[in-house]
Amino acid sequence: MEVVTHSRCFGGDQGVYRHASEVCGVDMTFAVYMPPQARREPVPVLWYLSGLTCTHDNAMTKGGMQLHAARHGIALVFPDTSPRGAGVADDEAYDLGIGAGFYLNATQDPWKAHFRMYDYVVEELRTLLEDTLPISERHGITGHSMGGHGALTIAMRNPERFQSLSAFAPIVNPTQSDWGRKQFSSYLGDDESAWAQYDATILMTEIGWPGDILIDQGADDQFIDLLRPQAFAEAASRRRQPCVLRTHAGHDHSYFFVSSFAGDHVAWHAERLKMH
Amino acid sequence: MEVVTHSRCFGGDQGVYRHASEVCGVDMTFAVYMPPQARREPVPVLWYLSGLTCTHDNAMTKGGMQLHAARHGIALVFPDTSPRGAGVADDEAYDLGIGAGFYLNATQDPWKAHFRMYDYVVEELRTLLEDTLPISERHGITGHSMGGHGALTIAMRNPERFQSLSAFAPIVNPTQSDWGRKQFSSYLGDDESAWAQYDATILMTEIGWPGDILIDQGADDQFIDLLRPQAFAEAASRRRQPCVLRTHAGHDHSYFFVSSFAGDHVAWHAERLKMH
Repeated sequence: MEVVTHSRCFGGDQGVYRHASEVCGVDMTFAVYMPPQARREPVPVLWYLSGLTCTHDNAMTKGGMQLHAARHGIALVFPDTSPRGAGVADDEAYDLGIGAGFYLNATQDPWKAHFRMYDYVVEELRTLLEDTLPISERHGITGHSMGGHGALTIAMRNPERFQSLSAFAPIVNPTQSDWGRKQFSSYLGDDESAWAQYDATILMTEIGWPGDILIDQGADDQFIDLLRPQAFAEAASRRRQPCVLRTHAGHDHSYFFVSSFAGDHVAWHAERLKMH
Repeated sequence: MEVVTHSRCFGGDQGVYRHASEVCGVDMTFAVYMPPQARREPVPVLWYLSGLTCTHDNAMTKGGMQLHAARHGIALVFPDTSPRGAGVADDEAYDLGIGAGFYLNATQDPWKAHFRMYDYVVEELRTLLEDTLPISERHGITGHSMGGHGALTIAMRNPERFQSLSAFAPIVNPTQSDWGRKQFSSYLGDDESAWAQYDATILMTEIGWPGDILIDQGADDQFIDLLRPQAFAEAASRRRQPCVLRTHAGHDHSYFFVSSFAGDHVAWHAERLKMH
């Protein structure tokens, strides 16, 4: 993989990298923060999946996660939110196509040639990181909005690959939301039975998660009707899923919300990833 | 009021008192813990409402709250769960009559003569405490099971009287539960429109709470189908109610559950009651 940029950060190293992705069929860019502890021993990894319109850059720049990752000795990975570049299908809407991969494997034209973010995150990028960086086998996953959707669905479907899980203002019920129905119809086709594997509320109802889950939500989130936190809250409570669901007065959907609680999330993951 | 017992406890004073209740028409017993800080200045008060079959004694003895109250400098009040004694109506079931007042004002015979725990807690006992103890005007309220139901419904209906709110494994939807329908029918009659004022999920949907709420629930709670936490979780999330809803793996409905999280609840209330 090619180093795009590299910066010292809280005693560790913030890098941006590019590599030829076989899964997505294009070059993909991602960011990794390695804490100072990684110079001594392999460290656990926290994946941060970003939301609509973001690249690897937004959370790396505005999330304020590195301070906490350095304190706890865990690495951070910020993947892109979709393939992008020459030949990649797109749509004029901000919430379909480039910047809106929804962490799924598209099965429909014109998307299926490149939009395979599920396999990219779960398989290809993970293997690349394990082959090239001093990281342990313990991985946690979080994300914001569409990335919270990605974190919840990927973790619930791959509990053997992730040992901790949280989300910031996640899209939790896309099969019942305008942030979901249009995209799933485009990427996956009109047979809604193929959509369930990418809906966190349905997955919570059907399979749940073997650990506990932290989810933060702003009460003044301007997109809350699209996120549908009440559907997931009901499903998690009905399942008796160990979890902490917090609704925070005054907070909106922005990175000011994410950064306000970033320390709690990194600590949550660190505590679980460092268990033996 | 008459002193029944009095004991030094974590540098403060644990008392049990009896008084002639005008509201309930019988002598009522309650417990108060005063922290050492109360010798210097008036302290905030945390009300703890107990569950089915309890008296003032259970939580006072098994809740483990005093250590935390002494640390944070807040008083604890443990009322009884119903009137009791000669002339008080009862039922052979453990969940109706004595020990099962449901913190409401009964309107039906034979209950209405004495079962007025709502007015007793909200009005009479509060006035008595304010007239006799060095407490401030800042009150919080919590409770367990039926007492969690009492805390939630009393606080939502009296936001000017309580500045903080939490609950342990509360009955949150009694109008849809066997812990509620039988009792409300007996105490309030068959007109279900009179029941809504005592149902936390309905109150959350209709009026909510001006502050934030902490609720803990054990995932292995043997009574969870009667508590219906999923109904309240859905209603609170839909309302965007500031709250922290925690589901804890392995915990049941016992005082071992309550005492495990008592410190978190006392700290929660102390932080909010000491705001100015």
